[in-house]
Amino acid sequence: MAYYAQPIARLIDELSRLPGIGPKTAQRLTFYILKMPKERVTNLVQAIADAKESIVYCSVCGNFTDVDPCSICSAPHRDRTTIMVVEEPKDVVAVEKTRDYKGLYHVLHGVISPLEGIGPDDIRIKELLARVSSGVKEVIIATNPDVEGEATALYIARLLKPLGLKVTRIAHGIPVGGDLDYADEITLAKALEGRREM
Amino acid sequence: MAYYAQPIARLIDELSRLPGIGPKTAQRLTFYILKMPKERVTNLVQAIADAKESIVYCSVCGNFTDVDPCSICSAPHRDRTTIMVVEEPKDVVAVEKTRDYKGLYHVLHGVISPLEGIGPDDIRIKELLARVSSGVKEVIIATNPDVEGEATALYIARLLKPLGLKVTRIAHGIPVGGDLDYADEITLAKALEGRREM
Repeated sequence: MAYYAQPIARLIDELSRLPGIGPKTAQRLTFYILKMPKERVTNLVQAIADAKESIVYCSVCGNFTDVDPCSICSAPHRDRTTIMVVEEPKDVVAVEKTRDYKGLYHVLHGVISPLEGIGPDDIRIKELLARVSSGVKEVIIATNPDVEGEATALYIARLLKPLGLKVTRIAHGIPVGGDLDYADEITLAKALEGRREM
Repeated sequence: MAYYAQPIARLIDELSRLPGIGPKTAQRLTFYILKMPKERVTNLVQAIADAKESIVYCSVCGNFTDVDPCSICSAPHRDRTTIMVVEEPKDVVAVEKTRDYKGLYHVLHGVISPLEGIGPDDIRIKELLARVSSGVKEVIIATNPDVEGEATALYIARLLKPLGLKVTRIAHGIPVGGDLDYADEITLAKALEGRREM
């Protein structure tokens, strides 16, 4: 039996596909949206469509951006000799919030994970190798301190060290098994300060 | 300093206005949406726009519907002598899931709440009075068992009893202070079974 009119059932279904949103939350959100002023719904729909339309990957670092290269890659005051390698765009936000880092970034968009069938060619490692030739002195590897993150860090370090680069890993100030973008700003800053050569 | 491109910041902002979605969840959802296949984003946007466009309030019971009158109000097999009064559309879904109730509904879209400045004229009580004249024998009041829900139940009972109607209240099988749509099906069915005249 159908408890909902079809357009309601469909919206609940679409919303419950989003991460962290179960059927009950999807139902609550749907009924909330149905009661929202039409103009606010238009704003929400437009915000989703616009973001999807206008946001691309920066051709240099791979971060989300609406201008290419992104505002960090094209900022004149940033230190172009240092690149920090992170897993996801959210990690760039987490590090930027510490205000301690002035170099550039490289977003891998994933980690090496044999279990999930993700190999080195499936993340942006080739693009990193292509970048390091031009005046880069240090690569800081800031993947998450879990199994996949450590394995990815080691893999990248082994590729970069023969090129004569300084390759560092952020310190384990972050609890092992934790998630980079849930660390508080001070912990992240400490982890950055205590980085060691690998 | 801006940590996000403007379209990203805007989407995070719009999402964090939804109930139960904090800034961190909004950020996670935003990055998830940006990585979703374009076709899935289109489906999501379309589902929101379609629901908002096609869903109206049933002119009889006030429930959300895409046909007017709604499928419950127009179902030939439902008992038209009984009306259950609920606060919100989600409560109709909760009661329908018990499969124990075969009458009609009346959705108030709120409760009387002097603290929030919501009086009897701000919810659909007039519409209820207009309905009960035509062959209705019993009105079951199924507002939530909290202060506002009880006050609203009493208010409606005082209006309906002089008209010679049987007015009942669902039993307090539901924990007092709880929320109707979080009760399990059996508790709700029990509450319905043990309703008493008021």
